[in-house]
Amino acid sequence: MGNNIEALLKPQSVVVVGASAQEGKVGNIILTQVVKGKFRVYAVNPKGGTACGLPLYASVRDLPEVPDLAVLALPAGPTLGAAQECIQLGVKAIVAIAGGFSETGDAGYALEQQLGNMLRGSQTRLLGPNTLGLLVPGIGLDTNFLPAEHMRRPDPGNIAILSQSGSIAVGEMDSNALTGVSISAFVGFGNRLDINENELMDYYAEDPGTDVLAMYLESFADPQGFLERCRRIVPHKPVILLKAGRSEAGARAVQLHTGSLAGSDRVTDGALRQAGVIRVYDPQELMDAARVLAFMPPIDDCRGAVLTNGGGFGIVASDFIESNRPGIGAKLAVLSEETKQKIASAALSFAAVRNPVDLTASLNNAMCDAALSALQEDAGVDIILFTLGFQPPAIDENLIDIIIHWARNGSKPMIVVPIGSDIVLKAMQKFNAAKVPAFTSIWRGVQAIDTLAKRGTMLRKLQAAQADPVETAGAVAPTLQPGAPVGEYEVKAALREVGVNVPRSIVLRPGEQLQAIPLNYPLVVKISSAEILHKTEQKGVLLGIRDRDELEKAVADMRSRFATGDILIEEMEGRGVEMIVGLVRDSTFGLAVMCGLGGTTAELYQDVSFRMVPITRRDADEMLRELKGHKLLEGFRGIQTDREGLIDLLVKISHFGEFYQDDILQMDLNPVIVQPERAVAVDAKILWTQG
Amino acid sequence: MGNNIEALLKPQSVVVVGASAQEGKVGNIILTQVVKGKFRVYAVNPKGGTACGLPLYASVRDLPEVPDLAVLALPAGPTLGAAQECIQLGVKAIVAIAGGFSETGDAGYALEQQLGNMLRGSQTRLLGPNTLGLLVPGIGLDTNFLPAEHMRRPDPGNIAILSQSGSIAVGEMDSNALTGVSISAFVGFGNRLDINENELMDYYAEDPGTDVLAMYLESFADPQGFLERCRRIVPHKPVILLKAGRSEAGARAVQLHTGSLAGSDRVTDGALRQAGVIRVYDPQELMDAARVLAFMPPIDDCRGAVLTNGGGFGIVASDFIESNRPGIGAKLAVLSEETKQKIASAALSFAAVRNPVDLTASLNNAMCDAALSALQEDAGVDIILFTLGFQPPAIDENLIDIIIHWARNGSKPMIVVPIGSDIVLKAMQKFNAAKVPAFTSIWRGVQAIDTLAKRGTMLRKLQAAQADPVETAGAVAPTLQPGAPVGEYEVKAALREVGVNVPRSIVLRPGEQLQAIPLNYPLVVKISSAEILHKTEQKGVLLGIRDRDELEKAVADMRSRFATGDILIEEMEGRGVEMIVGLVRDSTFGLAVMCGLGGTTAELYQDVSFRMVPITRRDADEMLRELKGHKLLEGFRGIQTDREGLIDLLVKISHFGEFYQDDILQMDLNPVIVQPERAVAVDAKILWTQG
Repeated sequence: MGNNIEALLKPQSVVVVGASAQEGKVGNIILTQVVKGKFRVYAVNPKGGTACGLPLYASVRDLPEVPDLAVLALPAGPTLGAAQECIQLGVKAIVAIAGGFSETGDAGYALEQQLGNMLRGSQTRLLGPNTLGLLVPGIGLDTNFLPAEHMRRPDPGNIAILSQSGSIAVGEMDSNALTGVSISAFVGFGNRLDINENELMDYYAEDPGTDVLAMYLESFADPQGFLERCRRIVPHKPVILLKAGRSEAGARAVQLHTGSLAGSDRVTDGALRQAGVIRVYDPQELMDAARVLAFMPPIDDCRGAVLTNGGGFGIVASDFIESNRPGIGAKLAVLSEETKQKIASAALSFAAVRNPVDLTASLNNAMCDAALSALQEDAGVDIILFTLGFQPPAIDENLIDIIIHWARNGSKPMIVVPIGSDIVLKAMQKFNAAKVPAFTSIWRGVQAIDTLAKRGTMLRKLQAAQADPVETAGAVAPTLQPGAPVGEYEVKAALREVGVNVPRSIVLRPGEQLQAIPLNYPLVVKISSAEILHKTEQKGVLLGIRDRDELEKAVADMRSRFATGDILIEEMEGRGVEMIVGLVRDSTFGLAVMCGLGGTTAELYQDVSFRMVPITRRDADEMLRELKGHKLLEGFRGIQTDREGLIDLLVKISHFGEFYQDDILQMDLNPVIVQPERAVAVDAKILWTQG
Repeated sequence: MGNNIEALLKPQSVVVVGASAQEGKVGNIILTQVVKGKFRVYAVNPKGGTACGLPLYASVRDLPEVPDLAVLALPAGPTLGAAQECIQLGVKAIVAIAGGFSETGDAGYALEQQLGNMLRGSQTRLLGPNTLGLLVPGIGLDTNFLPAEHMRRPDPGNIAILSQSGSIAVGEMDSNALTGVSISAFVGFGNRLDINENELMDYYAEDPGTDVLAMYLESFADPQGFLERCRRIVPHKPVILLKAGRSEAGARAVQLHTGSLAGSDRVTDGALRQAGVIRVYDPQELMDAARVLAFMPPIDDCRGAVLTNGGGFGIVASDFIESNRPGIGAKLAVLSEETKQKIASAALSFAAVRNPVDLTASLNNAMCDAALSALQEDAGVDIILFTLGFQPPAIDENLIDIIIHWARNGSKPMIVVPIGSDIVLKAMQKFNAAKVPAFTSIWRGVQAIDTLAKRGTMLRKLQAAQADPVETAGAVAPTLQPGAPVGEYEVKAALREVGVNVPRSIVLRPGEQLQAIPLNYPLVVKISSAEILHKTEQKGVLLGIRDRDELEKAVADMRSRFATGDILIEEMEGRGVEMIVGLVRDSTFGLAVMCGLGGTTAELYQDVSFRMVPITRRDADEMLRELKGHKLLEGFRGIQTDREGLIDLLVKISHFGEFYQDDILQMDLNPVIVQPERAVAVDAKILWTQG
């Protein structure tokens, strides 16, 4: 980095400004934690005296050294003076805890601007303001003003939590720490006046102690920068994101909370998928996904073997694995005869040795050992889910070690669902310490399978994509001038330039006479005018014109009803699957390609998918797969479609979007008819951002 | 009851047969629990001696009285002899713990049949075999062979758990008991040789100590009986069901587990909705739904107020409330100015007083009290969700009591989401003891809102339905003879008899000449034959016939291509929204009415809904609302449809199904065209169960 981020996250020396000897005060709670760290610690308070066994210096200037990191445990006002002093002294990094800045309105905003002005031109970096700060268990760095008896601190682990909200993160850390979930770091960046999520991602992407990035965001400091980093990091480490502010009310609350705008959630979803981000919706889900990815390798296929000691557990788990609503729509493994034989020879006669394998409430440690051994060796199994009720008499704590043995030393990933009370608390701690992913509900356990499968799918895709040719090579620039309103004829001409199929056509400018036309009947006659956006409603489209006679009548009719505008005469396209394709500008991420089933379907079933410009053929293929109605493009009821041609069209629309990156507000191709031999845009409109 | 069920569930005297002094043995674990009960206890073991301070009698015959209940803690074989003895003595009820019966194959099945034969003609009732049995905390009745140190027993409460799987139920009870969740009873009925879920439902429907029925089923002992009971019980007490075996693999495992067949899940879903059952998918969800319904009244509207001490919590909760994917698609309350004023005057200046209300990490008890008071008094709020991170310094255990005060004494239901570790364990115990629904993830808390809203909606519907007229009044019997194959003409004639609109038509029998016809052009000519099910594929339909000339040609053409069959000549119907309507026989529940969007949509989007015959107009209305594409029938893009006419048609198809209850295998009306003025069945087919 060379930008003092390291001084923030791995300081050699730390000062707490606003330190206090008085129990319950923020400056006392923070100092109490910080003194335990593996670095030199100083405390500042003009009142003097001592706190936590340290002398209280009057000022940062009086310290025997310039510390790497200053933690400002002060209200908003005094934070400014203290920050000024630190900057002047050359303190490398500051954590500004105080709220009362831009999140509270105009006065706070002005205060935050002042703080920003101080930082400008200096080498000092600032985390916050309005943040709980940091927790780096490996070096004992902890700036959270949360008393030890109110919040359990996690042990050192391999998950980095980067969060815009401190409360969400510490809440989940606390509840996870109860069962021994560990982390490499928590960084809350609050108002991110200086340091934002993107820089922190850069750091933890390179941090050898971090294997997974778990993030909570309400908005993006730099959306493009975020996506760019995800594309770079995801091949090496998973990025999991809880993006809050999806709903209208959520987005309103986001504005209150951090003063920034949330973009449209459906475009966000497409952008995140494209960048390889694993998206979650609840803080518990965030930590669950982080944990399974931190503990187990991804899976290439998803044939799950379910082991249980209670028939009902096995059935519910199987339902979740195989079903879609609710469920993950995966497959249950078909066990080999050998596997079944091995399990049967170790189990009681009334155990079920098919998948799900039910060892019944008579399970003992040896049966469990034999069954796990057999499942680990079955080539038809990709992952093992062990749902285990801890109630039966023969179960004891040694079973926990047997499970850990197979989960760590077997060749396949394993997920445990331990159900019970006191013994499960102990088991969870042991499982987490041994990096065995365990979850206390069946659904959470099955979701963990899905998370590993998603990660595996993504890595395979990324690997395959490396061999892909550069797709913009040979892309042709359209000659259309942006800004001025354009009619359908001009839009289609531009589309034709970039290689998008449009119907063969001629145009009649105002006053031009109808000559012999080089088109085949049946024809369509349309008014083509930038002023008329909804032609059909205004009867600006005449279909099914069968001969010269009808054509002349149609042209005359159009001219009688529309004073201005060109008349577009097109060959009428044959039938096919109707799609809608478009470009749409998102306030957060910029221009997105959109694709959906045409007619009323896209709207009725909300069946559309988005990706940010530019897209690859793989992206386009994924967009189509994402549609609930995707079967319609895959030979459904014998319907032939040029699916490859549609992918081609989507990529070309993306190229088109690239050429007009800042100019297009919205572009609709509706419908695109996907015929057996080609995909063709039958109607087309553009709205420019200005014009 | 008067059928000895009471002797099973509230015995005055209990004998444990197979009792043992040896620790770890099933007969010892059970006796250890049973001796604590509020009834007279005896123990039987031919070896003699004592166990748990009781003398071991050689036989049930030797006891000083005939006990109400005998718990057979014996293997499968000896269970038969002991049961025989109990039956002869007139013991009122038996719990047969042993596995090794019908769930294990032919030999076990024969053994179970023997047991059944013994019971026949006696007054003795039997629970099981293959069951953990009973847990009735109020009287200390506990037959679960699960050592106390392996399973926490819940305290007495108001939820009855009726479960086909013991393991699922005890697992959830154990983990719930850790946080003090209480129950009125758990009854595991295992192989339900005698007592099944329906009888137990009857009992707990009347039990004054039970407010909620929480059920786990893999199959239905008597599906019609189950639905009938739900319809009777649901107006008074909620019935929540986890129906496992939804997927193919799940259903396979069900067969292994209890030897019974699972029906099609989509029909099951329709049947359960119709009967007012709240359906869940995970055991944790089952207990969550039971708990919120046991603790809080249902809500009529769903305007939620979110209170929090961490901005992120509030945003995530709001997202879940307002969004659909994932979320419950409800509304956030708009707080009154007065409410905001009250909260603002108690909170710090930088608190957010809009909904979600964020008191920030500086929350203290007084602020919380003031905010809850204000929200409880706001007429625009239907329910309050308090997401509370327990980490901040000013929070202490007194806050728990403040929350309990407002949750119990406020006028509105409240749900708490406490996030943290040790203090949350304590808080959960206090909340459960005080009947305050609390859940340790935001998503579970929001789902609880949805559960109360679903219950409210259902009760309103049931109340409104009381005023409905009896709908089969005036229903006309069709004259069609079931069993024999029939062509379209005959099916439509029968539909016309029950009042379903079909196109005006005439039929030409083989050899009949075309006379003057009383129909308006355009016409459709179809072959009508029981042998030809897929007319369109065989070009058996000619559309758009405009005059007599074309009609004659069409008839001649049909006759030249089809050697047999009638020729149906119909008026061609105008355009409208195309639906598919039908009847389908489900192996579990019998005949169901089906409804979906027509064309490829129903199939592509799996957009169909089911209800069991007979349906009411309200059921039909719900079926339409359940379709994802329901907007198409509600004026979408200005399309006019006779939605009431479609409801009418659905009810008439249900009447039709009633007349042929046992005869119809399947019936398709595809399409039904819903025009602005009427809904009309344009094609119709019947398959009989026999014929």
